[in-house]
Amino acid sequence: MLINPLRIAVMPNFREKLEKISEKNKSLLCVGLDPDPNKMAIKDAVAFNRAIIDATKDIVSAYKPNLAFYEQFGLDGLRMLEATLQFIPGEIPVIGDAKRGDISTTSMAYARAMFEVWGFDALTVNPFLGRDSLEPFLAYSDKGIFVLCRTSNPGAKDFQDLVIHFSDKQIKPLYQYLAIKVQEWDRYNNLGLIVGATAVSELSEVRSICPDKPFLVPGIGAQEGDLRAAIINGVSSGGRGVIINVSRHILYASRDPLDFAGTSRNVALQVRDAINEVLLSIGKPW
Amino acid sequence: MLINPLRIAVMPNFREKLEKISEKNKSLLCVGLDPDPNKMAIKDAVAFNRAIIDATKDIVSAYKPNLAFYEQFGLDGLRMLEATLQFIPGEIPVIGDAKRGDISTTSMAYARAMFEVWGFDALTVNPFLGRDSLEPFLAYSDKGIFVLCRTSNPGAKDFQDLVIHFSDKQIKPLYQYLAIKVQEWDRYNNLGLIVGATAVSELSEVRSICPDKPFLVPGIGAQEGDLRAAIINGVSSGGRGVIINVSRHILYASRDPLDFAGTSRNVALQVRDAINEVLLSIGKPW
Repeated sequence: MLINPLRIAVMPNFREKLEKISEKNKSLLCVGLDPDPNKMAIKDAVAFNRAIIDATKDIVSAYKPNLAFYEQFGLDGLRMLEATLQFIPGEIPVIGDAKRGDISTTSMAYARAMFEVWGFDALTVNPFLGRDSLEPFLAYSDKGIFVLCRTSNPGAKDFQDLVIHFSDKQIKPLYQYLAIKVQEWDRYNNLGLIVGATAVSELSEVRSICPDKPFLVPGIGAQEGDLRAAIINGVSSGGRGVIINVSRHILYASRDPLDFAGTSRNVALQVRDAINEVLLSIGKPW
Repeated sequence: MLINPLRIAVMPNFREKLEKISEKNKSLLCVGLDPDPNKMAIKDAVAFNRAIIDATKDIVSAYKPNLAFYEQFGLDGLRMLEATLQFIPGEIPVIGDAKRGDISTTSMAYARAMFEVWGFDALTVNPFLGRDSLEPFLAYSDKGIFVLCRTSNPGAKDFQDLVIHFSDKQIKPLYQYLAIKVQEWDRYNNLGLIVGATAVSELSEVRSICPDKPFLVPGIGAQEGDLRAAIINGVSSGGRGVIINVSRHILYASRDPLDFAGTSRNVALQVRDAINEVLLSIGKPW
C-alpha cells in the first residue's frame, strides 16, 4: 500500500485546505506535475518534480499530477508518483488527475485507489456513465471531486456541446445539463467541475448554474486560453472558486539543467500575479 | 517496464486474434479478471487468477482484467496484474478494461501505458472528450479500441439516453449519435463499442448503425441481463461480433478453496454453451 500517513493526518477537508493555502499563498494557481521525458530539463522525473515543487510551493494553491504521465512508465512510473507525493507539503492539496469513471462496484475500487492508496485530496472524474458511477467517489465527503463538464480540447465540441432535450422540453447543450445534474447530485458539497479556459462563454454559463462550486480550469499556457477572460467568467461572486491549472508552460519553461526550476518559478509567479491583477481589477484582491 | 515480449511476439492484430481463438474454442465468452478480496475463494489474487485462467482457457475468446481491481491495491496490485498476464496464453486476446480518455497528449501517454507497457490487445475508452481524445488510441491500428456507448448500469440513462439534436435537425439518443461518430471515425477498422446486455433494444439500434463492429457486452450474470435477447440483438449478420463478458458470476461461483476453479469452469461452460445454443437457434452455429 502507498498510503502516505503524513498527508492523511493533516487533511480533513479538501475545500477548507484549498481555501487556506490559497489565502496564504495568495494564489489560484495549480501546477500540473506531468513528467514528459522529451521535455524535462533533467532526466530524473522525481528530482525534476521535487525541484518544481520546491520552487513553487509558496505560490500555488494545489498540485495536479496527471496519472497518465506516470502510468506510461509502468510500475517505475507509479514509484515516481509515490516519491513525488512525499515532497508536496501536507498543507497543499493534491488533485489526482485520473478522469476515472466506471460502473458502481468498479468506481468503488477506483475511489479506494485514488483516496486510500494514493491519498489524493481531490480527483477528476468522467461522468459519462451517470450518477451511480459517481456515487462511490462522492461518498468520500472530505475529498473534492471534479467532474468533467466542458473541456479545453477541440473535441470538446463533439459531444459536450450537443444540444439536448430535457423531459420538460427545455433545450440545453449537454455540458450545461451536466452542470445542472452536478448541482443536484452534490449532497456532501464536495463536487466541482472542470471547465477549460479556452471555453470562455461556457465558463460563464456553468458559473451561473453552479454559483459556488470550485472550477478546475485547464487550458492556460500551452493551450493558449485567455487568462483574463477565463477568470472574469469563471470566478464565483466572492472572486474565488477557480483553480487555474498550468502544466507544460511552467514545467518546461527552460531546458537548462542547472536553472530550470528558477525559470519555472518565474513563469509560475508571472501567472499567479497575472491572475491576482485580474482579481484586483474586479475588486476582489486577496 | 512491464512489456511482456511473449505476448507481443504472437499478436499482430486484435480482430484476427479474437476471431481465431473464438473459432478454436467455439466461444464468444470473455471472462473478466476482477479480483475482489471479499469474494475470492483463496486469498492470493495471482494464484486465484491463474486457477481461473487454467480452468477456462480452452472455452473463452478473451480475458478482460479491469484495472480498478488492481489499482485499488497500489503497486502490489499492479504487480498482481503483471503476474496474471503471464498466465494468459498468447493466442487469447486480453482486453484492458480501463475506460481511459483525456485530452490528446494525455491520451497518448495512456495509450503508451496500455499498449506498450501492459501489452493489452484491446482497451476500453471513454469518448466524452471527443474525437481528438480517441485519436492516440486509434493510432495503434493493430489494437482493438472499445468505446463506451450504452452501458449496463442504471445511470446509463442519465446522459447516454439524452435526446440530442444534430445540425441537420435529426433527433437521436446520445448513444446512437455516438455510434454514428464511431462508425465515421474508424479509419483503421479497429474500433468497437461497449453496449450492455441490460440494454437489449439499444443493442439492436447500435448494431444497425455499426453492422460489422465488435461489441463488448457486459451485464450478463451478476447484472442479470437477458443473454438470449442480448445475443439476438447484438450479433452481426454473420452471427458473430459480440464478446459476452462475465466476471463475478464465473469468478465467485464457489468459495471452496480446493475446488473453486472447477466450479468456475462449469459456470463458464454453461454460459459458453448457452451462447452457442442461441447461435444455433438463429442458424449461426460454429
